[in-house]
Amino acid sequence: MHTIDVSSAVSAIAEQLVAWRRHLHENPELSFQEVETSRFVHDQLAAMGYTEIERPTPTSVVARLRGAKPGKTLAIRADMDALPIEEENTFPYRSKRPGVMHACGHDGHTAMLLGTAKILMEHRDALQGEVRFLFQHAEEQFPGGAQEMVKAGVLDGVDLVIGTHLAAQFPTGKIGVRAGAVTAAPDVFRIRVRGRGGHGAMPHETVDPIVIGAQIVNTFQHIVSRFTDPLDKLVVSVCEFHAGTADSIIPDMAELVGTVRSLNPALRDEVPAQMRRLLDGLEVMYGAKIEFEYERGYASVVNDAELTARMRAIAEQVVGADNVIDMDPLMVGEDFSAFAERVPGCYFYTGSANPALASDFPHHHPRFTIDEAALQNGVAMFVTAALAFLG
Amino acid sequence: MHTIDVSSAVSAIAEQLVAWRRHLHENPELSFQEVETSRFVHDQLAAMGYTEIERPTPTSVVARLRGAKPGKTLAIRADMDALPIEEENTFPYRSKRPGVMHACGHDGHTAMLLGTAKILMEHRDALQGEVRFLFQHAEEQFPGGAQEMVKAGVLDGVDLVIGTHLAAQFPTGKIGVRAGAVTAAPDVFRIRVRGRGGHGAMPHETVDPIVIGAQIVNTFQHIVSRFTDPLDKLVVSVCEFHAGTADSIIPDMAELVGTVRSLNPALRDEVPAQMRRLLDGLEVMYGAKIEFEYERGYASVVNDAELTARMRAIAEQVVGADNVIDMDPLMVGEDFSAFAERVPGCYFYTGSANPALASDFPHHHPRFTIDEAALQNGVAMFVTAALAFLG
Amino acid sequence: MHTIDVSSAVSAIAEQLVAWRRHLHENPELSFQEVETSRFVHDQLAAMGYTEIERPTPTSVVARLRGAKPGKTLAIRADMDALPIEEENTFPYRSKRPGVMHACGHDGHTAMLLGTAKILMEHRDALQGEVRFLFQHAEEQFPGGAQEMVKAGVLDGVDLVIGTHLAAQFPTGKIGVRAGAVTAAPDVFRIRVRGRGGHGAMPHETVDPIVIGAQIVNTFQHIVSRFTDPLDKLVVSVCEFHAGTADSIIPDMAELVGTVRSLNPALRDEVPAQMRRLLDGLEVMYGAKIEFEYERGYASVVNDAELTARMRAIAEQVVGADNVIDMDPLMVGEDFSAFAERVPGCYFYTGSANPALASDFPHHHPRFTIDEAALQNGVAMFVTAALAFLG
Amino acid sequence: MHTIDVSSAVSAIAEQLVAWRRHLHENPELSFQEVETSRFVHDQLAAMGYTEIERPTPTSVVARLRGAKPGKTLAIRADMDALPIEEENTFPYRSKRPGVMHACGHDGHTAMLLGTAKILMEHRDALQGEVRFLFQHAEEQFPGGAQEMVKAGVLDGVDLVIGTHLAAQFPTGKIGVRAGAVTAAPDVFRIRVRGRGGHGAMPHETVDPIVIGAQIVNTFQHIVSRFTDPLDKLVVSVCEFHAGTADSIIPDMAELVGTVRSLNPALRDEVPAQMRRLLDGLEVMYGAKIEFEYERGYASVVNDAELTARMRAIAEQVVGADNVIDMDPLMVGEDFSAFAERVPGCYFYTGSANPALASDFPHHHPRFTIDEAALQNGVAMFVTAALAFLG
Repeated sequence: MHTIDVSSAVSAIAEQLVAWRRHLHENPELSFQEVETSRFVHDQLAAMGYTEIERPTPTSVVARLRGAKPGKTLAIRADMDALPIEEENTFPYRSKRPGVMHACGHDGHTAMLLGTAKILMEHRDALQGEVRFLFQHAEEQFPGGAQEMVKAGVLDGVDLVIGTHLAAQFPTGKIGVRAGAVTAAPDVFRIRVRGRGGHGAMPHETVDPIVIGAQIVNTFQHIVSRFTDPLDKLVVSVCEFHAGTADSIIPDMAELVGTVRSLNPALRDEVPAQMRRLLDGLEVMYGAKIEFEYERGYASVVNDAELTARMRAIAEQVVGADNVIDMDPLMVGEDFSAFAERVPGCYFYTGSANPALASDFPHHHPRFTIDEAALQNGVAMFVTAALAFLG
Repeated sequence: MHTIDVSSAVSAIAEQLVAWRRHLHENPELSFQEVETSRFVHDQLAAMGYTEIERPTPTSVVARLRGAKPGKTLAIRADMDALPIEEENTFPYRSKRPGVMHACGHDGHTAMLLGTAKILMEHRDALQGEVRFLFQHAEEQFPGGAQEMVKAGVLDGVDLVIGTHLAAQFPTGKIGVRAGAVTAAPDVFRIRVRGRGGHGAMPHETVDPIVIGAQIVNTFQHIVSRFTDPLDKLVVSVCEFHAGTADSIIPDMAELVGTVRSLNPALRDEVPAQMRRLLDGLEVMYGAKIEFEYERGYASVVNDAELTARMRAIAEQVVGADNVIDMDPLMVGEDFSAFAERVPGCYFYTGSANPALASDFPHHHPRFTIDEAALQNGVAMFVTAALAFLG
Repeated sequence: MHTIDVSSAVSAIAEQLVAWRRHLHENPELSFQEVETSRFVHDQLAAMGYTEIERPTPTSVVARLRGAKPGKTLAIRADMDALPIEEENTFPYRSKRPGVMHACGHDGHTAMLLGTAKILMEHRDALQGEVRFLFQHAEEQFPGGAQEMVKAGVLDGVDLVIGTHLAAQFPTGKIGVRAGAVTAAPDVFRIRVRGRGGHGAMPHETVDPIVIGAQIVNTFQHIVSRFTDPLDKLVVSVCEFHAGTADSIIPDMAELVGTVRSLNPALRDEVPAQMRRLLDGLEVMYGAKIEFEYERGYASVVNDAELTARMRAIAEQVVGADNVIDMDPLMVGEDFSAFAERVPGCYFYTGSANPALASDFPHHHPRFTIDEAALQNGVAMFVTAALAFLG
Repeated sequence: MHTIDVSSAVSAIAEQLVAWRRHLHENPELSFQEVETSRFVHDQLAAMGYTEIERPTPTSVVARLRGAKPGKTLAIRADMDALPIEEENTFPYRSKRPGVMHACGHDGHTAMLLGTAKILMEHRDALQGEVRFLFQHAEEQFPGGAQEMVKAGVLDGVDLVIGTHLAAQFPTGKIGVRAGAVTAAPDVFRIRVRGRGGHGAMPHETVDPIVIGAQIVNTFQHIVSRFTDPLDKLVVSVCEFHAGTADSIIPDMAELVGTVRSLNPALRDEVPAQMRRLLDGLEVMYGAKIEFEYERGYASVVNDAELTARMRAIAEQVVGADNVIDMDPLMVGEDFSAFAERVPGCYFYTGSANPALASDFPHHHPRFTIDEAALQNGVAMFVTAALAFLG
C-alpha cells in the first residue's frame, strides 16, 4: 500500500480539527442556508492549496485533488447543515444562533473532511487518481442536498464514494460497518377517507369514515405480518388519525397519516401498491372514496458488499479488530443514498459517545455533543481508505 | 255476526280433537312423505260429509265448504309433517316410528283444522262464501310444501288466509298476535375463500384464507351495526368456519357458512348484495377469489294489518282481552308466508305450555308435547273467524 | 264524555294561537335563559284568569286549573326554549335575536298550551279534577329543565301526563302515536387510550394507541351485532377519533367520542358495562390504560300502553282514523321522559309539514318553520283529552 | 496447518461415498427406528478400525478418534433418519420400503460423516485431540434425537461441534454459511375458544366463538407488526380454524392451531406470553374461556460467530471464495441446536442442486434427490476443519 504514517499525520492536526469543529458549532446554519459555512469551507480549502474548488449549488462545495498519476476517483462526503433546535449545552462554543444548533454532528463531519483534505494534499504524490471532496448542504431536510449535487454532476467520473456519521450510540474508538442496507427509507403516507356524514343515530344513512379508518389501521398491519418476507425488515405505522367534531355526528372524513420504513428497495417499491390495493378494496366494501398520497423519503443507504469488506479491513487497521462493530441497520433515513445508488458506496459510523464528556445524548437532543477525539478516527479512516484505494 | 255458541260447539268435540291428535302423534311422517297422514285427513273429511276434497300434491289435502250464499273465500291452513327426531316422551301414544316425531305440534295443527271443518260443516247454513281447508305437507323442509300448493292453484279465488302455530312459549289460554312481520326469513350463505396455501413460515408467498376469513367474520358485523336502520331487525351469524389440516401449512381455502334472519323483505333483498360487496372488496385487498352462495329460505310471514286487527278482536272474544299477547316477532322461519305473500293473511300463536303437563319443552326438543286443552282455543279462533268473516 | 264542541272552540282562538306563536318566534331565548318567555306566559295565564300560577324554577311556569268537582290530575307539558342557530327565514316575525332561533317548534308548543289553558278555563265547570299546565324551560340542553321541575314537585298529585311535539316529518293534519318507547336515550361516551408514544420506526417500544383505538371502533360494533337482542334497538357510533401530531411519531394517546342510542331502559343499563368490559380486555391485550366516561342523556320516553290507546282513540276523533299514524320510534332524545318515568305518560307527534309553506325543513335547520294550522290540532288533542279524562 | 492433500484424499473415496449413500437411500428408516441404519454405520466404522464405538441410545452411534497428541475435542454430527413419504423417483436404488423415503438428504449426511471418519482415521497422526463422530437418530420428529444424545453425555468434553445439511436451494459447489441464527425455532400453538353456543338467530344469548376466533387471528398479527423489533425476525401463522357443524347454530367452541417461527431465543420466549395476554384480554372482552397450549419445537440453531468465521475461511479454501454464500437464515427447524446450545457450533449448508440431475426438487418432495458430487464437498469441509482445529 503505502508507507505514510496516518496515525501521526492525524495527530498532527488534532487541534486544528477541534478548532474547525468548534467554529462550525458556534455558527450553525439551517438546511439550504449554509451560506457562511460553505464560504468557510471554501476558504479553508483554498488556504490548503486547493485550486479546483467548485460550488455546484449555492451552498455546497466540491474540491478535487488530483494525484500524481491517473487512476480511479474516490469521493468522500460530509454534510454541513444544522437543525432548528435551541441548544441547551453551556460550553463556550455553543451556538450563537438562537433556535439553530448542530445537534446531529455535521459540524464534526465537515471538520473531518477538511482534515482529510489537508492531510491528503500533503501526500498528493502518493495518490494515483483523484480524491473528490463533497461538502454537502441540506441533509436534514427532504428532498435533501445530495440529489441536487448529483444532478449538478458531482459524481461524474467517480468510482467509489464513502462517508461517515458520528454516532452517539457507539463509544469513541469504535467503528460500525455493515454491508447492504444500513439506513432505512423513511416514507410518509397520507390518507383521506371521504365517506358521507350524518347523524350518529342513523349510521345506515352514512358511510362511516371512522369505521373505515379503523379497518385501514387494522389491515395495514397485514402488510408487515402477512405480505412481507419475515427475513425482510419493514415498519408501517399509522401515526395520526383525525376525524369528527361532535359527539353525535358521524363525520364526512377521516385523515390518517403515517410512516413506512424499509431497508430493501424492492420491498419499498411494493408497499405503496399494497396500500393502494387495501384501500381500493375498502372503497368497494364501504362505498367510500379514499385518497392516498405516498411520499418517498430518502432511499435506503445500501453499502456495496465488496467496498464494505475493504472498509471493514481498513477499520480493523485504524481502531483494531476488537473495535469494529458489525452493526445492525438503523431505521433512520440519510441522503447519502443519493450517491450510493449511483456508484459503489460505503457509509460507516464513527463512535463518539463518551459518558465522561456527556456526549451520549441521542442525536437531535438539545444537549447532543460529540467526543472531539472521535474526529481523528474519522479522518484516519478516510485517509487510510484514500491511500489504500488510490495508492 | 251470528248466534252460534262456538264455545259449546268446540267443547262438544273436545275428545275427538284429542283422539285425532294422538293418532297423528303416534304415526308421524317426514316432510314430503305424509302418505298415511294425508289419507287419514282425507278419510276424516269424507266422513264429515265433505265432497269437494282435492289432492293438489301427492301428500296434501284441500277441502272446500261452500256456504249457503255466495261471498268471500277464507282459507285456513294447517301443516301436517313431523321431524327426524327420536321421541323421548313415554306416554302411550308416543311415536311408533323410530327417529320420527311430531316435535313441533303439527299433529295438533291438523287436529284443530279437522275440528274446525267438522263444526263449520254443521253450520254451513250460516256461511256466505267459501271456507277452504288447506292441509299442507312439508313445512319443515325447505323449499316447503306451501309454495307447491300455491303453484297448484289452491289460493285461486281466496280472499283471506289464516293459520296458527301451537306455542310452547305461551301458556295455554293465551293467544299471541302481531301485525306486520311475525316470523323471519331464514336465509343461508356459504362462502369459499380461495387463497393460495403454503408454508406457515412463509406467509408472503401465500394468500392466507384464514386471515381473510377473519376479516369476513369481522366486517359482516358491520352489516347489522352500520348498514341497517337501527329500527329494523336483522341477524347475520357466521356459524361455521373450516380451514386447514396441519399446524404449519397455510391452507388454500377457508369455508364459512352462516345464517341471515330478517323480517323486512326490502332489507332482506339488500343483504346478499352488501355481503357480495364486502367480499368483492376483500378479493381486491388480498388477491383471493371468494365464492359466495346465498340461499333464500322461507319469506318472512307478514301479517296484514287490517286482518290482524280483526283477528285480535276475535282473540279477545275467544280468550278474553287479558289473554291476548301483542307478541314480538320470532326469528324462526315458517312457510305460511307462501300464502300470506299472495293474499291478506294472519298467522297467530296459540299458547300450549302447561308446566304441570311438562308441555313447555321448546319446539324440536325430543320431549316436546302440547297441552291438548289448547286445541280447543285454536278451533274456537278458526270457527269464530269463519263465522265473522263469512257470516 | 262531554258536550262541548271542541272544534269550534279551537277555531275561535286560531288567530290568537298564531299571534302567540309569532311573538315567541320573534323573541327566542336559549335554554335556562327563558326570562322574557316565562314572564310572557305568566302574564297571559294571569290575563285568562289563572290564579294558581307558580314559578317552580326561575324560568318555568306551572298553572293549575281546578275543575268543578274533585277527580284526577292531568298534566300537560310544553317546552319553551330556543336554539343557538342563526335564523335564515325571512318572514317578518323572524328572530330578532342574532344567533338564537326557535328552530325546533317550541314556540308552537308554548302557544298550543296557552290555547289549551284558555279554552279549558272557559269550560272549567265540565272538569272533575285538575289540569296542570307545565311550561317547561331548557329541553334542548342536557340535563334539561324537566328533571328540575320534577325535583321542585310539579308532579305531586299528578295522575297522567301528556305532551306533543310538532313534527316536520308528518304532514299537517296527521297525528303520530306509539305505545312504548317513542324517543331514544341519547348517551355520550368519551374514551382516552393512554398508551406510550415513541418513534414510528420502533413500534415495539411503544404501546400504540391508534391500533388500540381501531380495535375499540371495531369491537364496539359487536355490542349491536352480537350482544344485543335483534328485536331490540340500539345504535353505538364512534363519532370522533383524535390521535397524533406528526407523521413519524406514535402518539401517547388517542381520544374517541361517540353516542349510544337506545329505546329499552334495561338494555341501556347494560351498554356502559359492556363497553367497559371491552376496554378492560383491550387494556390487558395491549398494556394500555383506557379511561372511560359514560354520560347518560335523557331517558327514553316510554309511552304508557293504556294511556296511549286512549290518546290514539282521541286522535281518531280529532283528525280521523286515516290520519293517525302508528309511528316508529325516533332515535332523538327528549326530556319529557323525566315526567313519563314517574307517572303514566303519552307523548305524541303533531304533523306540521306543508311543502306549500316550506315548513318541511328538518328540525334544527336554519330555515325550519311550522304550518301554523297545525297548532289547532295540538290544542284540539289536549282539550279533548282533558275533557275525556276529567269529564 | 497441515500438509495433507484433502482434495486427493476425498477424491479417492468418491465411489465409496456414493455406494454408502445409495445403500442408505435404498433402506430408509423412520425416526427412532434407525435399527439397520445404525448397525450399518457401526459396522462400517468398525471395519475402518474404530474401536471406541458407542450406542448412547438404541439407534444412534458415536465413535471417537483420538489423535496422536492431546488437544481439543471436535464433534461432527450427521443425522440418519428418513421420512414417511412414498418415493416417486425411479432410479435403481430408490427406496425399498413402501411409504418411507430419504427425502431430506440424511442418507448423504451419513455417508459424508462415514467418509470423514475414514479419511481422518488414515491421518490420525496429524491430529492433536479428539474427533467425535455423532451419528444421530430422529432429527425429523420432535422432540428429536439430538437432545437424547446430549442427555446421554455425548457432548462431554466436546469443545466445538459442526454439521452440515445438503441444500437443494444452492447449486452443487456452493457452501452457505452464516453467523448467528441460521434456522428457526418452529413452535406450535393450539387454542380452544370455549364460548356458549346457541341459535344463530339469537347471538345475544351466546358467546360466539367464531367472532372471538376472528379477533384472535386478527390481533395475533400485531405480535409481528407492533410488538416485535422490526430488525428481528418472527412469523406467527394461524394455520387451522375449525368451528361449527350447522348453518344456523352458533357453536360452543372454535379451535385454532398455528405455528410461530423465530430466530432470536429471547424473542421466542416472549411470544407465548404475548399470546396469552391477548387471549386473556379477549376472555375479558367476550366472556369466553380460552385454552392455550404452546409447544416449543427445536430451538433455533445459532452459529458461534468466531467458529463460523473460521468455517467461512475453510469454505473459501474448499470451494473458492466466489462459491461461499453468506446465506440468509432459514425459517425451518433443525435439532442441531441441541448441540450448538451447549458448545460453540457451526451448521453450514452444502449445495447439492443440479438441474441436469433433477436434484433441485425441494426437500420433503417425493422426487427429492441430491447431486452425489456434493458429498465430496461436505467431506472436504469436515476433514479440513478437523485438521485445522486439531492440527
